[in-house]
This record gives sequence, C-alpha cells and structure tokens, in this order.
Amino acid sequence: MDIRGAAKAAKKASIQLAATETAVKNKALEAIAQALLKERLSILEANEKDLALSRKENLAAPLLKRLKFDEAKLNDVINGIRSLIGLKDPVGTTLSARELDEGLELYQVSCPIGVVGVVFESRPDALVQISTLCLKSGNAVLLKGGREATNTNRALSEVIAQASEAAGIPPGWLQLLETREEVDEMLKMDESIDLLIPRGSNAFVKYIMDHSNIPVLGHADGICHVYVDAEADLRMACQIAVDSKCQYVAVCNAAETFLVHESIAAEFLPMLEKDLAARNVEIRGCPKTCAIIDAKTATEEDWRTEYLDLVVAIKVVTSDDEAIEHINTYGSGHTDAIVTANPSTAKRFMDLVDSGNVFWNCSTRFSDGYRYGLGAEVGISTHKIHARGPVGLEGLVIYKWLIKGKGQIVSDYADGSATFTHRGLNTPFSM
Amino acid sequence: MDIRGAAKAAKKASIQLAATETAVKNKALEAIAQALLKERLSILEANEKDLALSRKENLAAPLLKRLKFDEAKLNDVINGIRSLIGLKDPVGTTLSARELDEGLELYQVSCPIGVVGVVFESRPDALVQISTLCLKSGNAVLLKGGREATNTNRALSEVIAQASEAAGIPPGWLQLLETREEVDEMLKMDESIDLLIPRGSNAFVKYIMDHSNIPVLGHADGICHVYVDAEADLRMACQIAVDSKCQYVAVCNAAETFLVHESIAAEFLPMLEKDLAARNVEIRGCPKTCAIIDAKTATEEDWRTEYLDLVVAIKVVTSDDEAIEHINTYGSGHTDAIVTANPSTAKRFMDLVDSGNVFWNCSTRFSDGYRYGLGAEVGISTHKIHARGPVGLEGLVIYKWLIKGKGQIVSDYADGSATFTHRGLNTPFSM
Repeated sequence: MDIRGAAKAAKKASIQLAATETAVKNKALEAIAQALLKERLSILEANEKDLALSRKENLAAPLLKRLKFDEAKLNDVINGIRSLIGLKDPVGTTLSARELDEGLELYQVSCPIGVVGVVFESRPDALVQISTLCLKSGNAVLLKGGREATNTNRALSEVIAQASEAAGIPPGWLQLLETREEVDEMLKMDESIDLLIPRGSNAFVKYIMDHSNIPVLGHADGICHVYVDAEADLRMACQIAVDSKCQYVAVCNAAETFLVHESIAAEFLPMLEKDLAARNVEIRGCPKTCAIIDAKTATEEDWRTEYLDLVVAIKVVTSDDEAIEHINTYGSGHTDAIVTANPSTAKRFMDLVDSGNVFWNCSTRFSDGYRYGLGAEVGISTHKIHARGPVGLEGLVIYKWLIKGKGQIVSDYADGSATFTHRGLNTPFSM
Repeated sequence: MDIRGAAKAAKKASIQLAATETAVKNKALEAIAQALLKERLSILEANEKDLALSRKENLAAPLLKRLKFDEAKLNDVINGIRSLIGLKDPVGTTLSARELDEGLELYQVSCPIGVVGVVFESRPDALVQISTLCLKSGNAVLLKGGREATNTNRALSEVIAQASEAAGIPPGWLQLLETREEVDEMLKMDESIDLLIPRGSNAFVKYIMDHSNIPVLGHADGICHVYVDAEADLRMACQIAVDSKCQYVAVCNAAETFLVHESIAAEFLPMLEKDLAARNVEIRGCPKTCAIIDAKTATEEDWRTEYLDLVVAIKVVTSDDEAIEHINTYGSGHTDAIVTANPSTAKRFMDLVDSGNVFWNCSTRFSDGYRYGLGAEVGISTHKIHARGPVGLEGLVIYKWLIKGKGQIVSDYADGSATFTHRGLNTPFSM
C-alpha cells in the first residue's frame, strides 16, 4: 500500500477505534503482550539482523546499545503494556455538563485525537510504547522508526497489528512507514493526519515543523537551567547541578547552563568546579565566572547551545530577575530549576519562568513521564498549546461537545419565547 | 513602534501578566468598563468617522450594520465585561497533584498561553470581547481588526490599554496592528507569538495556516449537516432543518447539507420542500431527491460547499452508516446533528461523527460560546488538538508542571537508593 492509502486506512480505522470500548482495547493490549512473548524468537532474530548490519556499518556503541532489543527489553515493554492496561481509559470522560434549557443538555466528553504520525529514534522499544499508548487512547498511528531498526520494527509492528486486530481492533489502525520519502509525503496529508509527534534531533524536529501544516507536538531544543540563588544550600546546589548535568548527558532534560547569584559565587563556584572536574565536565564561563574559577570564556552562542555532552556554561547574575530574564531569553521552555531556601524567591521563579517544567530544589532530570507517574510518554512538548512537558495518555485525547435535545431550535431563543437556564449538571454523559 | 517591537513588548508583558493576581485583573476589567463609559462620546465619534468613510465607499448594508458601534453595542460590551469579572479565573487551578517521593511533590497548574495574535472581522465589539477575554486569562494580545473600523479600533484599544495599565496590568499587553503587511510580519514571529486565532473568510484562515509556523486555532469551513433518520419525528425534523439552515444563513454553524434516510424520504421531502419554499431556500438534490421533489441536481462540488446563503444541498441515504460516512468525508468537523427518536442510533451517530459538536434532536445553530454558557468566545475551532468547538476562557490557558523538592537528584532513583511513591495528592499547589 502507498503511504496515502495507508493514511486513509488509518483515518477510517480511527473512526471505529474512537468508539471501541475500554474492555476491547484492554483485551487487545493483553493479546499484544502475549503475542510478543510467543513471537519473541523471531523478533530477537530480526533484531540480530539489524545489529549485524549496523556493526558492519560501524554504528557507534551507544547507538548499538539503543538499537539492541533483547529478552530484557522485551520483558520491559511487556511490563509496560500490563501497567498501561491498569491505567484509566482517557476516552469517554465527561469533562463538563450543563443544562442549557429544560431537556437541552450539553456535555463535553473526551475522545481520541484521531490519527497520529510519530517519527521516532532508533530504539525499537519506542515502537511498542508509542503504538500501545495510541491504542489505549483510541488513536490510529503512523509510525516511522530509525532506518537501522528496519527488521526489528517490521517484526514488532506485524505482531502488534495482527494480535490487536484479531482481538477486535479495527484493521489498519497501525501503519509502519519505512523511508524518509514516506515521511515527506506524510507531512502533506493534513486531511488524514491530525497530529505529528517527531522525536529526534533538533534539526529534524525543526524540519518537520517547517514542512507541514499538521499540528506538531514535541520539542526541538532542551536548553535547561539550574539557578543557584543567594539563599541556596550550597551543598544541595552542587548535587542538583551535577545530577542535572551529568546523570545522563545526552538527553533533553539535562542541564546546559548554570546561573549563579553573585553574592555566593565566590564560595560556590570553587565547590562546583571540584565536583564538575571529578566528572570531567568542561566549563565555559562568563567573565565573572572566569575571574573566580578556571574556565573557557563563554560566547553568546554558548547560552543558546544544547551541548548534550560533558560541557556546561556558567553565568554569574546580579539578581533573581536577571536569572529569570536569561532563562526566558535563551532557554527552550523545557525544564528549569531553582535552588533556594527561600519559598518566596522560589514562588516568583516558578511564576515568571515560562517553561513547561519549573522545579524548586530538585534536579532537572525529573521531568519525564515515567518519573512523573504518567505511565509511558509519547514525547515531551515545549509548545504552549494542547500539552506541555511529558505527554502521556492525556495528551492523546481531545473532546467533543455533545447535545441531547428534544427538538429545540435557536429562533425560539432569539425571539425570546425560550430562555437559557445554563445550570451546571453533575451527571456524566449517557443516553 | 514597529510590529516586531510590539510583539517583543507583548511577550515581555505576558510574563508579568501570567503572574498577575485575579483581584488585579478583575479590577482592571472594571476600570476598562468604566473608561469605556466615560470615553463613550469620543468612541462613538470615531465610529461615526468609520461609518461615513464606509458609506462613501458604498459598503454593503449588512457590513455597515456590523461596523456600527453605538450606545447599545457599548452597553452590550460593558455588560459582557461585568459578566467576565464574575467568571472564575482560569489561571492557577491545580489540575493534578502527585507525591513522587516523600518531600518531592509534582503539581500540574493552569497558566496563560502567553501571547495570542487575533485577526478579526469588522465588528469593533469583537475587539473589546477578545482583549478582555485575553486579560482575564492572563494573555497578552496582538489584535488586527477590519480596515473599515480603523478609527473605532484605535479609540477602543487606547481606552482599554490606558485603563488597564493604570489599574496595574503590565504595559504593552495589548497591541493594535493596522495593516495587512503587519499581519504578514506577525506570521513569522514564532519566537514571540504562541497562538494565532484568525477569524474571517475561509480563504483568509487558510492563508494564515499556510504562511505561519505558529499554531493556529480556528476554522476554515463550516459545512454542517442535519441527518434525518428513519425513526425521526418528521415535524421536529422540519423545524430543526429550517432553523439550522435559515435562522442566520451567514454564519459557520448554519447547516449546508441535509441527509435524509430513504425510508422516510417520500413523506419527509415534500414537507421540507414546502417549509424551505416559504423561506425562499433553493434546493440542490441528489438524483433520488430530485425524483421526489423539485430541485436542481447537486454536483459533487455541492457536498463540499459552504453556501452561507439561502441554498441547501439534500442527499437521500440508504443507511445511518452512509450518513456518517458522508459527514466524515465532506463535512468540516464543525457541527452536525441527527434527528431520530432512537437513542441507540443517536449514540452511534455521536460516537462515529468526527466533529467538534455533535447534536441529537436540536438545531446546529446552538454551537456557540454564549449559548453553551461559556461566556464570550474568541472563536470556534475545528482543529483536533488543544480546544474544539467554541473556545472561551478555558481555551486560552495551558499548564505548567511544578515540582517542590528538598534536594532530590535522579541518580539516587537510578541506582535504587531511592524509589518513587507516586501517590495522588488532593492539595492544590501552594508554597
């Protein structure tokens, strides 16, 4: 099937999937878990093929590690599916209910978005997580994974599609794309696709945003900050800074810039320097920083750079306002933390920093769907509409407005022969 | 100030406005109401100027009527502001709260979107409604009204900006654009503007979507349907069809196509024909329709046309599924109604029709923020993310994830020395 046909099939399936009951969706998820177990040998074999090809192409070791899909990873995704089964169905919740007039009732009821296009990195476990999140939330999905994982992705998507469709999920709800050309084609299909979730490099996400009219959820940059206020516990600040920078450098919620209040800079920076040196972190500092500790001079470009590496930029600021202004200017609206013992300072920081995740006295690395207890996530959004921060099941639904009437017409309300009551109702939608 | 400067000023103001307390915002709204009253003579005078110019340019009578801003309109907008003051502040609501671990608490708290760009039609009262909705929801706003209303919009926006800023709202939160070139410039400013809400013609909304990376909320088409099922009360169906088509033909929630089940077509269509003839409605029918009543033959193009006029397309369908399929194929996802005495049929229709507003036994004309009891609306959305249907205050907010910690770092959870509790909390966010 060509990609246009695939998208149309997904759209058609999405209409039926939106009306599929929770029990059927959960049964299908369990069927997927069992099928993954049953077919594990052929899945692991497909992954071996991908690994062998990638080794031949001298893929870097960290990428090989991400590509690997072994018994342990399989068990992880199966456990993930079982916990997803336990989560509340996000579809069909009555969000508000109002009597407009006697016998004229308005309900706002959650429903799936429709068809979601997800482009993800090389990890094959992402395919299982994303597709099962979409199934639980009633969305059809077009998936494009990393080229290196072609065989694994093909094996996984076949198992998932077959098991779910045998359990009553409308055929066509899951479609696998395999080439970059198909992605380019997908970007034009705003009639069939309701939302794009690109995961991957900064440049790739920007490319998607620039080449499609379809709404995009995701993040390009992850320029996260830790601000150490004048009233910070300096030991705590060191630990949070080091964890935010070093616990996993290659991810979007790792810190890239530390901001330090000048009144504690002379005491704090040497402590921090020592801890960062122990982790081999290169420091690029503003002139004030360089006057206190040994560091390369930071340029304007450093404040805008997502290093994703053992490099950090440090700036000494003269006030909380300067820190907030710096973050709102150079940050990416992802995750920013303040370390301070003063709750008023923290409150002001949390009010004025315009980011999806704003933390007081903890590491930026906590901004993650699993750590938040949302279950798995389809991605992290730095957009300002629909969903912000880690996006789990709730970010995959929207709502419909439903009215139950008894023949009411607007002209009666326009000429005054009927009037609205606009009385809140506490009943969920039912027929 | 140039438009880029205006947008930056709005962005700066939006940060402060997001943290402005409810009492200050309500005081500012009351100050705006009083200032509009106090300055009414100069406002009405400015409107007289616009009307005189437009009469000279032979503007059509309905457009002149929309442009007119007299004492009655002024009183309407002032009443609107006073009822807005009475509505709950949508900002600062704790949407969810979870203990991640002891002393590590996650809160999801509603906040403004930031800077909203609204392009609206000639009605000057829209300027007052939109700007006060934005103020109440804590958003800065860039406004571009109709060219014909230039003097009125200038007078209104000056009064609103001055009164609100004197009452403590950050200066620069409201910016008036006056030319089409400024709108084109605005479309490129995705660094300063978070959301665009275009109101106006189909072609104009499509132009905005095609020329900007900024998320857009709104609707291009309003192709709404009334489906008369085999088990409909035919008298009720006639009334709903006529009201949906004729009560106000020029608006997006007016019906453009009627779908009629074949088992009642022979009885129903002649009834409907008579009622439509009394309102001078031209009928374009499918072959089956034309075999029963006098009608022009509808072409494929008719099913896709938003007439906004006294013209309706009618199609006879052989099943509920055909009706649903027709709506999902040719509709615009705006508002669609079914007339039937059978709740199961209605339920199925409401489940499977993929539109923002789906009604049972009432007119499509009810889909409107005022009739829904949402207060005023900034627009109606046919998008599938963020907000759907009439968009009031709640569509102008998003949320932040806030964490209060005591120095926690992720490496402790990664190495197992700490574990997540993920326990639901019932407390709203506070420091």
